[in-house]
Amino acid sequence: MIIIAEKINATRKAIAAALADRDAEHIRRVAVEQAAAGADYIDVNGGDPRAGREAENMAWLLEVVQGCTDVPVAVDSADPEAVRTGLAMAKGRPVLNSISLEADRLETLLPLAAEHDCMVIALLMGASGPPCGVDDRLDNAGQLIERITAAGKQAGDIIIDPCFFPVSADANCGRMVMDAIAAIRDAWPDVHVGGGVSNISFGLPNRRQVNLAALAQAIYHGMDVAIVDPCVEGVTATIHAAEAVAGRDEFCMNYVTAAREGRLR
Amino acid sequence: MIIIAEKINATRKAIAAALADRDAEHIRRVAVEQAAAGADYIDVNGGDPRAGREAENMAWLLEVVQGCTDVPVAVDSADPEAVRTGLAMAKGRPVLNSISLEADRLETLLPLAAEHDCMVIALLMGASGPPCGVDDRLDNAGQLIERITAAGKQAGDIIIDPCFFPVSADANCGRMVMDAIAAIRDAWPDVHVGGGVSNISFGLPNRRQVNLAALAQAIYHGMDVAIVDPCVEGVTATIHAAEAVAGRDEFCMNYVTAAREGRLR
Repeated sequence: MIIIAEKINATRKAIAAALADRDAEHIRRVAVEQAAAGADYIDVNGGDPRAGREAENMAWLLEVVQGCTDVPVAVDSADPEAVRTGLAMAKGRPVLNSISLEADRLETLLPLAAEHDCMVIALLMGASGPPCGVDDRLDNAGQLIERITAAGKQAGDIIIDPCFFPVSADANCGRMVMDAIAAIRDAWPDVHVGGGVSNISFGLPNRRQVNLAALAQAIYHGMDVAIVDPCVEGVTATIHAAEAVAGRDEFCMNYVTAAREGRLR
Repeated sequence: MIIIAEKINATRKAIAAALADRDAEHIRRVAVEQAAAGADYIDVNGGDPRAGREAENMAWLLEVVQGCTDVPVAVDSADPEAVRTGLAMAKGRPVLNSISLEADRLETLLPLAAEHDCMVIALLMGASGPPCGVDDRLDNAGQLIERITAAGKQAGDIIIDPCFFPVSADANCGRMVMDAIAAIRDAWPDVHVGGGVSNISFGLPNRRQVNLAALAQAIYHGMDVAIVDPCVEGVTATIHAAEAVAGRDEFCMNYVTAAREGRLR
């Protein structure tokens, strides 16, 4: 399982405030905590609606984050300048989060993905809007995989994000995304599949419990990348436990080792 | 979802001690806590290897449990005398836990199930041993459903327990039972499916997390009865959350109501 820690994102109030104040100490604390909790990548999003500011934010965030941990980053932006800055500064092998079939993202970000030695998240948003079911997700995945591999990346460099949508709005959203995960896993065994599960609980109380249940179910269906906050109680334990129950952990060695090393939380 | 609260079972040390001491206060406390946590049935098992003692234990336990709560009981025993005693004393409409194709259980317990107005758990143990895969589970389920309905019960009175076996012994045990749940749900839409999930974590550390992940996954596959301890942190929240994500809770009304009423724990 690849864990992309999602917390350093300017849509979160505390991060937006730290970004505005250039409070490096706060960002460092969040980065180090997430790394200690088991992050394989630290997502960095410095979104700012003011023109030109996002690339500047990205540069500052990467300097702070990479100054306190060796965990590679996921450069998270739809802004080409911010992505260019992030990929140029990233140490190790980063993730680009994310391209999609939306015209502005595909044409501007795919060349950047191709230029750099990085993994790339392909979000299944379609050219004309969000996917509604399984078939359009598969269709979008096929198109994205074709475009990304044609640009020179390997299938194993691609993380297909199946788009988790809120079950509070439509009770079928859960089954749609789970079926899509299984179908993608089946059709393209070499790509990674996963994304930000927590969107599924939007609008509900006790979101943590909904997220954990969805995480366990998505892993069962073949998800192998999770964009989550590994510091939240139950997240890493659910990931390891769900893999064990799903038959992806022979003799539960990973689970038992994680328990012994205190990595289940 | 039907929750059968599993805690009053003589295989648990504290219950065995309370049973030996005829400590009614302890049993009452456990019964009331489980009822308050959302139990639809309170399982009562007074297992004792000494001949004749189990029926006596069952009688005493039912008197205590039924004296403090109106939640119906699940009469849990393989001993025909204990089952006969339990079903005769049970108020409301109890569950018989459980019959199976094992000759001693089938021949002695099926007539008791037929005599009483009760639901009956059909454990998928075969005549010659435990099931190994999906096909033999389906075969055992078919035989049990045929025998039980031939004895006069309705399909809706039957709870098929698919047999959760430890993933620590065989990594495939999880997928086998999940696939079996889905196949049974598909083949016999009118029967209930579910059982004691916690056996899946036997031999592992942090069993609670494995049980919760398995619970979420089993519910996704169609499980609608859970033999669990609803007082354990995360159990009722996972049940409601898993049903919402699995598309079995239109507009998440049950989940939101349970949250509002403080029934998620």
